[in-house]
Amino acid sequence: MAFATLFTRSLTMKDNSPMDKALLLLRDDLKAFEACFEENMRSETDQFNRIGAYLLAAGGKRIRPLLLLLSARISGYLGSQHIVLASVVESIHMATLLHDDVLDRATVRRGFPAANLVWGNQAAVLAGDYLLARAFSLVIASGNLPVLEVLGRTVSCLVEGEMRQLVGSSALDLSQEDYLEIVDGKTAALFAASCRCGALLGNDGPGGDALEDFGFRLGRAFQLVDDVLDYVAEGTEFGKIRGHDLAEGKVTLPLIHALRHGTDDDRRCIAAALGRSELSESHFTEVLRILEQTGGIAYCLEQARTLCRQAGEGLRIFADGPEKEALLELAGYVVSRSC
Amino acid sequence: MAFATLFTRSLTMKDNSPMDKALLLLRDDLKAFEACFEENMRSETDQFNRIGAYLLAAGGKRIRPLLLLLSARISGYLGSQHIVLASVVESIHMATLLHDDVLDRATVRRGFPAANLVWGNQAAVLAGDYLLARAFSLVIASGNLPVLEVLGRTVSCLVEGEMRQLVGSSALDLSQEDYLEIVDGKTAALFAASCRCGALLGNDGPGGDALEDFGFRLGRAFQLVDDVLDYVAEGTEFGKIRGHDLAEGKVTLPLIHALRHGTDDDRRCIAAALGRSELSESHFTEVLRILEQTGGIAYCLEQARTLCRQAGEGLRIFADGPEKEALLELAGYVVSRSC
Repeated sequence: MAFATLFTRSLTMKDNSPMDKALLLLRDDLKAFEACFEENMRSETDQFNRIGAYLLAAGGKRIRPLLLLLSARISGYLGSQHIVLASVVESIHMATLLHDDVLDRATVRRGFPAANLVWGNQAAVLAGDYLLARAFSLVIASGNLPVLEVLGRTVSCLVEGEMRQLVGSSALDLSQEDYLEIVDGKTAALFAASCRCGALLGNDGPGGDALEDFGFRLGRAFQLVDDVLDYVAEGTEFGKIRGHDLAEGKVTLPLIHALRHGTDDDRRCIAAALGRSELSESHFTEVLRILEQTGGIAYCLEQARTLCRQAGEGLRIFADGPEKEALLELAGYVVSRSC
Repeated sequence: MAFATLFTRSLTMKDNSPMDKALLLLRDDLKAFEACFEENMRSETDQFNRIGAYLLAAGGKRIRPLLLLLSARISGYLGSQHIVLASVVESIHMATLLHDDVLDRATVRRGFPAANLVWGNQAAVLAGDYLLARAFSLVIASGNLPVLEVLGRTVSCLVEGEMRQLVGSSALDLSQEDYLEIVDGKTAALFAASCRCGALLGNDGPGGDALEDFGFRLGRAFQLVDDVLDYVAEGTEFGKIRGHDLAEGKVTLPLIHALRHGTDDDRRCIAAALGRSELSESHFTEVLRILEQTGGIAYCLEQARTLCRQAGEGLRIFADGPEKEALLELAGYVVSRSC
């Protein structure tokens, strides 16, 4: 069973899943996080409560909160602000999902119809704004300026990443470098910030640098795997319809690799499929065949594995212990969830 | 010539408009504000720069920055942070306009095609997010936690106001109370916050309370007049097509008054027009006749005048001087712009 699913399950413990020591370690923190996150979703405006309840019911992998909680603990933090900050980074993530779904005209998110389809684009934009405002208000109330600085910068990065994707990601000549710049902004930045904010609560310094770097590499790897899963995941497993990126006209690393190493016919086939909203199953299967034949999928996964290995190596400055073990396990999960 | 237009003209001084002492007083501050605001719009992402330049070219009344600058000065502030904060409140305002235009499917903003029509809804949402993130980053960099607290709370209010409008403002039985709750959230809150943030730079306390109250009443009055102008303004003058609220299905105070005091036939006519996107000129004229006959327009303007008078009265705790004069002039402008 996947790491993050175990984490989520640990909250209810309805099943008898084998639980790792590292997971048990965070059980109370995660419970407190879920309560805080739910509280943060509340509003005097009913519509926000309805959207909040819907988002909560859909669940989530909670990777960013996990990174924050573990980073705080491995940095020696013993207070309870990490619970609040875990809720903050998940709120920021949720806000970008809401705005992203409006952007992408998404139809499914985590196996449920996306919020914008249930309540409309207008409500989804406002719900995202509300989550962002609440998230910042929480940190402001805590008075932690270094954390505020990191998060302020990170939200700018996130939005710039999304904008770069919107403007440039449908180009057939998108370079791997430009692709990674998009990935770093829209995903790696918040992973890195989650780690740094956790560290800022405890002993920052070299440990904080190492954790931020860990988060950054993990975030990149996570997005690479996500982009692979968009081609190879089962619809229900992944919570998303396969081929969404292709139909949306989004060029990702598997495609970049295939375009570079394929034949002229391959490139023509991909070009004809890209951005076609009514993409046929057979056309998608043909693109998938090209991705496998040119090694696009394997290349992308290999890049992700390397990043996760490097991420893990960077933690060597920390003494062995359950928090480190859990972080390494999280890195393992990011790669293994593709299998 | 309208007050705010004079202010804007004062930046270039190409014409020989009669300039008030009060306006001249702020000339350097406004120049510095425009430079800071422009700087804040810059990004490493070209698309944000293009949208930023477009928004800058469209200009604006800059009422919130004016309130902030004057509030800081009347509170005895002598530093330069008020320039930064003026840029922050205008950025927040601009962000809500961008998101609001997406929400409202607006076609014209300040006489120019709305940003969402030029670059698409997706880019407009992201540009709004970017402006918000940059605005908060500026205040975070200044380390002013009391200002951050006010602004965090205010953005939540703004978004809640917009959501209330989205969910409830098309109801024919919308009460004046519910309407004002929407107005207070979406408009008055940021006016009030602009004044409070200015005061927080100087001598806050009773003066700050009075200024916040001034801003709140002025904001309410401003929105009431805005809602009247949506019925009676000339298209080019107002920068917006008349009848937009009616066609959008937005019930505002002139309509609430008319629905309460009109005949059954009047109510039927209004109900048939409300939310009809292809509203005919003659149907609109008929609704306008009802608004005038039932006194809806006059009632709304009277409310606005009362609010501005009360706002001015609240400034009596301040000694007479050019800043107070300018604030009173601003209150006068809010009402007079309807004529």
